[in-house]
Amino acid sequence: MSKVAAEQIVERLKAIVVSGKVLTDADSLQAYGKDWTKKYEPDPVAVVLPKTTEEVQAIVLAANEMGFALVPSGGRTGLSAGAVAASGEVVVAFDAMNRISDFNPADRTLVCQAGVITEQLQNFAEEQGLFYPVDFASAGSSQIGGNLSTNAGGIKVIRWGMSRDWVAGLKVVTGKGDILELNKGLAKNNTGYDLRHLFIGAEGTLGFITEATMKLTRQPKNLTVLVLGLSHFNHVMDVLQAFSRRIDLTAFEFFSDKALRHVLANGDVTAPFEGEAPFYALLEFESLTEETLEEAMGVFEECMENGWVVDGVISQSETQAKNLWRLREDISETISKFTPYKNDISVVPSKVPAFLTEIDEIVASRYPDFEIIWFGHIGDGNLHLNILKPEGLAKEEFFAKCEEVNTQVFETVQRHQGSVSAEHGVGLLKKDYLQYTRAPEEIAYLKAIKVAFDPNNVMNPGKVLDI
Amino acid sequence: MSKVAAEQIVERLKAIVVSGKVLTDADSLQAYGKDWTKKYEPDPVAVVLPKTTEEVQAIVLAANEMGFALVPSGGRTGLSAGAVAASGEVVVAFDAMNRISDFNPADRTLVCQAGVITEQLQNFAEEQGLFYPVDFASAGSSQIGGNLSTNAGGIKVIRWGMSRDWVAGLKVVTGKGDILELNKGLAKNNTGYDLRHLFIGAEGTLGFITEATMKLTRQPKNLTVLVLGLSHFNHVMDVLQAFSRRIDLTAFEFFSDKALRHVLANGDVTAPFEGEAPFYALLEFESLTEETLEEAMGVFEECMENGWVVDGVISQSETQAKNLWRLREDISETISKFTPYKNDISVVPSKVPAFLTEIDEIVASRYPDFEIIWFGHIGDGNLHLNILKPEGLAKEEFFAKCEEVNTQVFETVQRHQGSVSAEHGVGLLKKDYLQYTRAPEEIAYLKAIKVAFDPNNVMNPGKVLDI
Repeated sequence: MSKVAAEQIVERLKAIVVSGKVLTDADSLQAYGKDWTKKYEPDPVAVVLPKTTEEVQAIVLAANEMGFALVPSGGRTGLSAGAVAASGEVVVAFDAMNRISDFNPADRTLVCQAGVITEQLQNFAEEQGLFYPVDFASAGSSQIGGNLSTNAGGIKVIRWGMSRDWVAGLKVVTGKGDILELNKGLAKNNTGYDLRHLFIGAEGTLGFITEATMKLTRQPKNLTVLVLGLSHFNHVMDVLQAFSRRIDLTAFEFFSDKALRHVLANGDVTAPFEGEAPFYALLEFESLTEETLEEAMGVFEECMENGWVVDGVISQSETQAKNLWRLREDISETISKFTPYKNDISVVPSKVPAFLTEIDEIVASRYPDFEIIWFGHIGDGNLHLNILKPEGLAKEEFFAKCEEVNTQVFETVQRHQGSVSAEHGVGLLKKDYLQYTRAPEEIAYLKAIKVAFDPNNVMNPGKVLDI
Repeated sequence: MSKVAAEQIVERLKAIVVSGKVLTDADSLQAYGKDWTKKYEPDPVAVVLPKTTEEVQAIVLAANEMGFALVPSGGRTGLSAGAVAASGEVVVAFDAMNRISDFNPADRTLVCQAGVITEQLQNFAEEQGLFYPVDFASAGSSQIGGNLSTNAGGIKVIRWGMSRDWVAGLKVVTGKGDILELNKGLAKNNTGYDLRHLFIGAEGTLGFITEATMKLTRQPKNLTVLVLGLSHFNHVMDVLQAFSRRIDLTAFEFFSDKALRHVLANGDVTAPFEGEAPFYALLEFESLTEETLEEAMGVFEECMENGWVVDGVISQSETQAKNLWRLREDISETISKFTPYKNDISVVPSKVPAFLTEIDEIVASRYPDFEIIWFGHIGDGNLHLNILKPEGLAKEEFFAKCEEVNTQVFETVQRHQGSVSAEHGVGLLKKDYLQYTRAPEEIAYLKAIKVAFDPNNVMNPGKVLDI
């Protein structure tokens, strides 16, 4: 981007938004030009903070007219570089569009602007005696617009689904600059293709989500947590099946003993029980009555008798439940000091044991010195594979080595009909691996759709797809 | 379609499918050329019954090459003429693709070919100790391919959602003739636009759904039915809110006293209670424990005290529950002898009382002699407006009069941001009213998508959209 062009763009943006909402200082460009992926160097030409959908539309029309590119920016907690501006783009950040409105208790819906923080929505729902169930580690900073653009999942998907499932309506600005109101909050509306579902998970490549009508549900009651030590990883599906036949689980997570050891080494939480196990499962359910609890204890005993489970603990209070959750939730932060190389892969749940064993063998045989940490949302078949950097190894060399093994990992994903990105999205980081999950014919249709909504390729170009 | 062309088409089809699977006799053309909409005269050139996805692909490629049109045909229970072949098309019927396979108890999924009957899937699930929750009056003949192509809803949407929500994967043949495997049964897969959701509800205009990986869930326990007489229609939302705050409802239906009177006149079922009310609500929930039942009775008393409800009855057994359901479920069949003109409209639930009142006034003032029967899935904001034909009036004249009032009805729908087709789809019957729910800019994108998947317009041309 030449300097003159950059100045013209900034002038144009300043004419669109209110004073002070176009940032060009080095700190802002650095901060707004990247997400949690640390691989790419930010280099945006400006950051603009619109306050209305109409301002967003004016920005998109200017981009089409003048030929500059736009990168949407929410809480920038993404892990696939979907919100990275490394090529002189204009970052459109939604921090100034953070209003919740139109709460309707009868419909159990509300309208969020794109910049509403996930936790803000969760808290608002709680104040109304209701519940927004999509939850994950970055809920304190991720924004609804970003959640929807990446169809965020998290720790409660087994019961409450993905972000996609909570959207009753969307207001979007397409890459062409049209404002569309999709589905208008309706529960039932069978009038042609549901464009709402195209924009969800599109990572900002078709247009901007500026507003969403979100559904809420009733608050869960007395959530109870069970942590089980598994005798062998292969039994994880037996345990899942035994429980879910009789109890509506709200979570079914897993982690390896290696993952647990890192968390325990921190000293903030204690081991769930005395004995050790190679793998652990964390289950959560609503303990609505004494009967549910008895049912759960019955299944637990059955799992012990079958030799699937070696020990277990059940929460007796909300505080205990929270502490047990920390055994699982603290993993990511605890291992972050080891500069982990992350993969977020999935297969159908029943294939998980065979799949994990294969991947484990591939990585262990190629890099016997690397420590591998497994955890994930096993009830959804979603595994987080984290490879830790050995102390002496330079970061670049370590990442390069990890990427060398990617082809083998993703070939295994493909053979098991899995996904190369279960919940993190594609962005820049996974773009070269898309074909391991989507066939060439499919990718051709994705490109055709991209062109229909964004013919001049102004919306997050180079993310997900190259056209 | 000229006769020569027709013969060539039939020859080509015969070369694709096994012997006897191309039908051209008058009875078959009549039977397969229409759905439950009686407005259009069937006139297909042939009916073809493929047995595999590859045969479907060969048929699509032939259609593109020779320039003939295809109409998908499932159980033909549609109410918007989405499966009508009135213009010399080839009907592609899925009766010979009716296999259920790959049931996986751990994943709770199975693979259905498009021609599997809804009830067949429901029964299969039940035999496995599981549950397929999408249910509606035509479940005994509707096929899964048709259900998904129209995103069928029904009577349990408030708890279990639409057909869309139960699809883990789709195998489709696009209008171009590509076979795509969409989402492959995965619970989590964020790798670009989710084409699965484009094909669901597309009414066969983008391609054929040939196979679906469907999710199942646990069987509900002890479903209990409550029928309440409402003092005034306006209180229906108060009652819904009071109950759903404390109980997970599996259904919340409503019907007018006029609807009930028709059902009672049949003599098969008895009145729910002695008194009368202008409107009735039917609620269903899982009575998991004694506590749930007490909770429900508590809410019922609260509704009585507030004057919202004048009387009520609760089922004490499965048989009683079934009989109470008949008060609602028998309506459609009971009034069918009056040649009803049906509208299937929706708004967000909280707008229902005001909306219904307006529509009621419009129809009553225009046609004071017509009997209006209201019923529907009020928990989803979905109203079935049925206008009964007076005895002396000719069918054509009656329909013409009803259609005259449509503009006013749909303008009201539009003003309330509602849907002109909540669950029946658009087909031919609602095509001219699409713009009351979808804006012109939206419709332009729908057309662009249609062209991307079906550039030669061989797939169900003239349905949903004209391009």
